[in-house]
Order: sequence, then structure tokens, then C-alpha cells
Amino acid sequence: MSSDPADDLLCATHRALCRHGYADLTMQQIADESTKSKAALHYHYDTKAELLLAFLDHLYESYAERLVGVDEDDPVAELFGLLDVALSPPHREDEAFQTAIMEIKAQSPYNEAFRDRLTRFDDLLGDRLRAAVADGVEDGSLQEADPDETATLLLTLVNGSYTRHVGVGAPVEESAALVREYVERHLVDEVSA
Amino acid sequence: MSSDPADDLLCATHRALCRHGYADLTMQQIADESTKSKAALHYHYDTKAELLLAFLDHLYESYAERLVGVDEDDPVAELFGLLDVALSPPHREDEAFQTAIMEIKAQSPYNEAFRDRLTRFDDLLGDRLRAAVADGVEDGSLQEADPDETATLLLTLVNGSYTRHVGVGAPVEESAALVREYVERHLVDEVSA
Repeated sequence: MSSDPADDLLCATHRALCRHGYADLTMQQIADESTKSKAALHYHYDTKAELLLAFLDHLYESYAERLVGVDEDDPVAELFGLLDVALSPPHREDEAFQTAIMEIKAQSPYNEAFRDRLTRFDDLLGDRLRAAVADGVEDGSLQEADPDETATLLLTLVNGSYTRHVGVGAPVEESAALVREYVERHLVDEVSA
Repeated sequence: MSSDPADDLLCATHRALCRHGYADLTMQQIADESTKSKAALHYHYDTKAELLLAFLDHLYESYAERLVGVDEDDPVAELFGLLDVALSPPHREDEAFQTAIMEIKAQSPYNEAFRDRLTRFDDLLGDRLRAAVADGVEDGSLQEADPDETATLLLTLVNGSYTRHVGVGAPVEESAALVREYVERHLVDEVSA
């Protein structure tokens, strides 16, 4: 555990989201998961919304770092690496956490700051997928495809994988395997065929 | 408008969900959208959860009817018809309604009755997609494909289209066009190529 009080609070927020979900989460419940009092928590963050935004920013930084870690010379390996990060986050097994993120997505139309953060996540992955597809088409390792449309289709599959996980209990691993097969079959194999 | 009191309440539930979302919805808010008092509403449904389940069942019946209405001789036309129903529901334009449905999906891990209803929706569309793909592969109008995996990929795309609509404001029509293009290009065209 980090000794940075802000980090401690973000870990506490994560635990509290897993335990209570987003909708009814209180500052007291977050304080209960941390070593701080509710008063100390308010010293760092005025409102629950402010703390949740800090938490989303922390998730974004961690996601961005993991995507930066994907740095392959080969566009096909790059594409699979990016999808692995997108479809096997550190909290993959954690249904409660994915559910809390989905509650935050459902709040997005009512909360401009949430919408802004979710759009940054979407753009971050989308830009990298688009670049990998464009590189692969250019060097001939992927078949002819529109990089924008292909990246959007992949983003839609990533979102759908988590939605079906939360909504109907479909394992993310199974969806991830189908997404990989889609890439293998329709973007890669037809080149070598 | 129907004169059936239950139908009136389900319409009121729809309007109340659009206006207030799922999380904070009260029986009073639903009564305010109907011609009934809150007491009369409790006469029909003991709890908010019971009324929401009746509402989901009503949505299911309406969705099932629209899917039954897709009845093409040609498996390719059948597949496109099913995707049209899935990706252009009557309330497509209604971001508030889609958002409420997403809040209900996010409640699914905590509510077995919601999970049960959402699974029925998923199975209903999944079974029809699977059958259309199987028929198309058999009669040669679609390329060789695993009907189970293809149906699941399409379900994932449908779910992802709504999630990106609610989460980042991506228009459902744009996602629907990409899904159609996927079918056209990877399931249909390669047969004629």
C-alpha cells in the first residue's frame, strides 16, 4: 500500500464501490474502507462527486500506463496487445467493480464530468486501435480496412463484452476470445489466404 | 392510449423512467405520470420492484412481437431484419429511456429477477440470430461460420452499441451501420466473392 493519503483514499473508494455500488455510495462508507475519518476525507475532497472524479482520473492514468506498455513493432501484435489490455483489466474478475463502472456509465448523460472522463477512456483506446489498424493496412499485415470504422467496431465489442458480463453474466474471457477470433479471421487471415 | 389500467401504469412507468431514471424512481413519481393515485398504484403492484418487473415483461412481450414480425424466407434478409429490430427499438431516440435500461442492467448482479428478465431478452435475440446464421450457412447464402459464436458476437455488438450511446454519446445509428457492414462484408460478401 502506498503511504500517500490520496492513494489510500482512492483504494478505499475502489473497495467501497465494490461493496456498495455507485448509486447509494456515501462518504462515510468510503471513510470506513480507509484509515481516515470522514472529516479527513472531506479535507481532501469536498464532495463524493469530486472524489469519484479523482478515482476515475486515477483509473485513467493506470489504463493509459498499461496501454503505453503495449509497444510492439508488428501492427498485428500491437492490435492483440491493446485488446488484451482492454479486455483483461486488473479488476476483470471483480464483477462488483465492473458493475459500479457500468452505473457510472449510466450516469454519464446526467453528469458532464463523468461523460468527459468516459470519452477520454474511449478516445485513448480508440486512437491506439485506429493507429494499429492503419499501420497494419499500410504494411500489408492486415487486410484492407477502414481504420476508423474498424476501431469503432472493436470499441463497441469491448463495451458490449462488459455490458453482457454485468447484465447477463457472460464471462468477459469468452467475449474476449470471440473478439480475438474476429481479428484473426477477418483482419489477419485473409491476408495470408 | 389503452383503457386497461395496467397498460396505463406501464406507460406511466415508462414516462417516469425517462424523466427520473431508475435509481431514484419512486412510486409517487410513477403515480404522477398516470391518471391513478399512489394508493391505486399499490393496489395493482405491492412494490416498485414488482411494477418494474411487470414493465420489463411488457417490454419483453413487445420486443418478442417485433422479432416474430421478422419472418423472411431468405436467411440473409432474416439476419438484417433481426438486427434492425435489435438496433432500432421504438425508443431509439430516447436517451433517457436507454439510460434507465442501462441502470437496470447495472442492478442485474444484485437482483435475480432483473437478471432473469435480461437473460430472456438476450436468449430471445440470440436464438433467432443463431438460427438465421445456421440456415444461411446451410443453404450457402452465408459463408462458413459457427452459428453460436457469430450470434454471440452480434449480441455483444448490440449491447456495445447501446453502452457507447449512453456512456459516450455515440449515435446508435452509426453503430448499427457498422454492424450491418460487418455482416455484409464478412458473412455475406465473401460467399459471392
